[in-house]
Amino acid sequence: MANSQYEYVRSFETWDAISPSNWIVVRIDGRGFSKLCQKHNFQKPNDKRALELMNAAATEVVRSFVDVVLAYGDSDEYSFVFHESCTLFERRAAKLATSVATQFTAEYCMLWPCFFPGTELERPWPTFDGRCVAYPKRKILRDYLSWRQADCHINNLYNTTFWNLVLKGGMSTTEAEDLLKGTLSSDKNEILFQRFGINYNNEEAMFRKGTVMYRAYDDNLEENPSNGMQIPDPNSKSQMEKAKKRKQKATIAVEHVDIIGDGFWEKRPYILAPARRGQDSGE
Amino acid sequence: MANSQYEYVRSFETWDAISPSNWIVVRIDGRGFSKLCQKHNFQKPNDKRALELMNAAATEVVRSFVDVVLAYGDSDEYSFVFHESCTLFERRAAKLATSVATQFTAEYCMLWPCFFPGTELERPWPTFDGRCVAYPKRKILRDYLSWRQADCHINNLYNTTFWNLVLKGGMSTTEAEDLLKGTLSSDKNEILFQRFGINYNNEEAMFRKGTVMYRAYDDNLEENPSNGMQIPDPNSKSQMEKAKKRKQKATIAVEHVDIIGDGFWEKRPYILAPARRGQDSGE
Amino acid sequence: MANSQYEYVRSFETWDAISPSNWIVVRIDGRGFSKLCQKHNFQKPNDKRALELMNAAATEVVRSFVDVVLAYGDSDEYSFVFHESCTLFERRAAKLATSVATQFTAEYCMLWPCFFPGTELERPWPTFDGRCVAYPKRKILRDYLSWRQADCHINNLYNTTFWNLVLKGGMSTTEAEDLLKGTLSSDKNEILFQRFGINYNNEEAMFRKGTVMYRAYDDNLEENPSNGMQIPDPNSKSQMEKAKKRKQKATIAVEHVDIIGDGFWEKRPYILAPARRGQDSGE
Amino acid sequence: MANSQYEYVRSFETWDAISPSNWIVVRIDGRGFSKLCQKHNFQKPNDKRALELMNAAATEVVRSFVDVVLAYGDSDEYSFVFHESCTLFERRAAKLATSVATQFTAEYCMLWPCFFPGTELERPWPTFDGRCVAYPKRKILRDYLSWRQADCHINNLYNTTFWNLVLKGGMSTTEAEDLLKGTLSSDKNEILFQRFGINYNNEEAMFRKGTVMYRAYDDNLEENPSNGMQIPDPNSKSQMEKAKKRKQKATIAVEHVDIIGDGFWEKRPYILAPARRGQDSGE
Repeated sequence: MANSQYEYVRSFETWDAISPSNWIVVRIDGRGFSKLCQKHNFQKPNDKRALELMNAAATEVVRSFVDVVLAYGDSDEYSFVFHESCTLFERRAAKLATSVATQFTAEYCMLWPCFFPGTELERPWPTFDGRCVAYPKRKILRDYLSWRQADCHINNLYNTTFWNLVLKGGMSTTEAEDLLKGTLSSDKNEILFQRFGINYNNEEAMFRKGTVMYRAYDDNLEENPSNGMQIPDPNSKSQMEKAKKRKQKATIAVEHVDIIGDGFWEKRPYILAPARRGQDSGE
Repeated sequence: MANSQYEYVRSFETWDAISPSNWIVVRIDGRGFSKLCQKHNFQKPNDKRALELMNAAATEVVRSFVDVVLAYGDSDEYSFVFHESCTLFERRAAKLATSVATQFTAEYCMLWPCFFPGTELERPWPTFDGRCVAYPKRKILRDYLSWRQADCHINNLYNTTFWNLVLKGGMSTTEAEDLLKGTLSSDKNEILFQRFGINYNNEEAMFRKGTVMYRAYDDNLEENPSNGMQIPDPNSKSQMEKAKKRKQKATIAVEHVDIIGDGFWEKRPYILAPARRGQDSGE
Repeated sequence: MANSQYEYVRSFETWDAISPSNWIVVRIDGRGFSKLCQKHNFQKPNDKRALELMNAAATEVVRSFVDVVLAYGDSDEYSFVFHESCTLFERRAAKLATSVATQFTAEYCMLWPCFFPGTELERPWPTFDGRCVAYPKRKILRDYLSWRQADCHINNLYNTTFWNLVLKGGMSTTEAEDLLKGTLSSDKNEILFQRFGINYNNEEAMFRKGTVMYRAYDDNLEENPSNGMQIPDPNSKSQMEKAKKRKQKATIAVEHVDIIGDGFWEKRPYILAPARRGQDSGE
Repeated sequence: MANSQYEYVRSFETWDAISPSNWIVVRIDGRGFSKLCQKHNFQKPNDKRALELMNAAATEVVRSFVDVVLAYGDSDEYSFVFHESCTLFERRAAKLATSVATQFTAEYCMLWPCFFPGTELERPWPTFDGRCVAYPKRKILRDYLSWRQADCHINNLYNTTFWNLVLKGGMSTTEAEDLLKGTLSSDKNEILFQRFGINYNNEEAMFRKGTVMYRAYDDNLEENPSNGMQIPDPNSKSQMEKAKKRKQKATIAVEHVDIIGDGFWEKRPYILAPARRGQDSGE
């Protein structure tokens, strides 16, 4: 029983490497999470335990994939940004997407008891689909992240208003929906404030801003901002190895801050710094 | 904070649908399973509990994806065959690969305690990468499955001989490796028989043949072989709905049999039957 | 001035090979041909010289690409069918599409004076865009060809009626358009017959059916139909070389016949015959 | 004869748009040009008429594709650079590659008599294959162009030396080959100078540098360098229309200058300028 006569079937596998010098985003999304929320009585509009479970799972993904420079998540989705110079799995899209999505899934399932003590998971287990997208420029990657954070804001403002109308205002979901149809952000802010005495800006930052995650180096960056930017020479094995170890040991910062404006990025230029000055991302 | 100015980033997402009328195989592979085997003391050459855990996870995947017509697995890999007419997720490769791989991962993690009672899983959790491959013809799909089963045979014969030499024969792993270098199947069979009184063909079928899984319809196929082949008209919603329910209720057969020869397929022509006579797979 | 430092740019080239065991159709389409028609006063509804020029160009393409088993064309488009087992240019899509489209363009330009004597070509020169499409099954390939021929019929019946209304019926183009809006084939046949005494079925076959082109082997196929089917063993260099020579010497049949029904194909089974019995297209 | 039943075959066409915000290079290469050179007795090492024919064909391609910002060619190849913001043909790769390659082919065939008066073209006509490559950063695009120009230099220095050895030095081609094996640039310069009194740097620039082509705007750029950079707002139809007309009227500069160093680009910043400040190519 030789298998050489069958080996030709390998020629049907396609090569799906993502073009070099593109930032790679692996975005994962909960599958059928509205049912999961219902079954396990997630709190509305936000279930803090669920979000913290998402964040815990994401932290582990960031920890194991040292090429991830930043992750951003809200609701049941998370985006992991791999550096444009990343060569993991030869940049093959399917490998990257499935490796991230399965680790995230495993973490979510295994960490569940820590965040939902006493609530047993039931089938269908939580799972996540995923996909890779390539962004050719740093500016466009930032626009991608802004898109996700703006989306988080819009959804959360809506959901916060909607669920206050329903849970505190005594409206049916249809009534709340009708009321909110066509309203602007300012209208929703007004409804929250007038009817429920809620200043939206005082809502939890995690709900309003989502969660951003990145490696925070031990170096005192305030005093010596260039510390974070010691970019290893890709041709020096020892420098690369040292850089990898540094990444593995780095604390992973988990924050709920604005990443649309320039402030966040100006303070942490190393996050999206080119792999080596003047090479790949030379513009 | 409008997100319309950022929406253009969606144009970077590529459309990865698999061409119609191709059989889709999603193959998943354990990531870093040799370390997992060591850490949890998997038995050599085969750990029955681990294989049965793989099979249990695969059964659940087959159960939830009604478009899977057959699955084949051995060692730490599994191949799920989606019918050539499948339209799940619009045939998008990333969706298919990540949905299968994450469900398999979740099942594996959650079912672990049933198969390894008393052995707690530890990080890194078991995870699986996955990829889609498209096969344009039934014959080529069968060659793919033959390739995997022939591979199972070759690996298992080698491993069985190797581990007998080490565990019962007192050889070092290097000595066993050297002894087996360049040997034919017949040589290994001979070593097993002469040195250890083992007739390879009496080894467990699951080890030798791997595991094949498919929906076995309640209909008495022996008496009425056409029962399994009631192919619904894709334009009839009620027929399609009925067919889906039938698939969901179907018992999933789990067998350790030869799928290289024609016998298996001739007895179960419905497994790879065209979606509708004379249409998609018309040759 | 070494160029080694720049060679990395090659890594941006993607591999665009078409999956094996798929029939490859390269379809070319005239670019901006309505202007070309106007400028050179092509006759309406069909310009015989222009169609014959298309056919002459296509014949040369078929002659040089021995892997083309059939070509079909009408109006300003042509489809070239490469055998599913074809390995030309490693099946790279861009190579195939540009090689066919540029040869077709060169032939069209260079043969122009033979078909339009006295009419000088002017810029913009006639050019053709092209693309590859992969069809996994013989049946689907035949549906593709049926689609093109049915399209030819529909367009030609419309155009024949339209231009008769305009040129002989004295209508304005708008009036003719309005009259034909919503008409069925039978209506158009009726108009042609009642108003202009034209039996559509007596129109030239080239206009009604388009043009089909294939290698007609010298062998007396009527008497010995298996002659056309001597399929060479791909592992025998001499057989393959002999087959190639036979293709190069073969007369190229140019016909205006129905290829939607089975008749054409049943008489010439060798056209879409598998590369080797029982291998690639095994179903 | 309805064709609706066959329309499903369109679903086999894949979408091959090149990701936005990438520079697109369409490179065309002469097919079988060594035979063409022989048949028409092209002069060695360079045939000026042939190169000028290439340049004339390229000029017409640049003229008709206003999105081409620069073209570079030598020998029998030409690279056409489409601006990263180009939306021609929705950026579909096959359309771009075949449209450029067929126009180039048509120009080459039709212009032949102007450059080779008295020499009639013969079959096989000159044709060109083509492909698209996407470059995500301006810096990488420049490296691509440097790669081609360095390649031109290396080949031309070799060919100049080789053919002088053969044509003037009386060597056989094998002897010349052997002599040059392993030589450095400096060795070849030395051979040329010592044996043939040739200072390589005095060879024609077109041979040494290839040909670079771009739109030179009428504006007096020396005095007012920002003139060339009036970047239209993509949302203003009138500005875009005006910009297009300006491109169509622009003189196409044809030069044989260095494009590896920064000088060329610093003098003409508008060539690779972003479509709109701060948008697409924002880094």
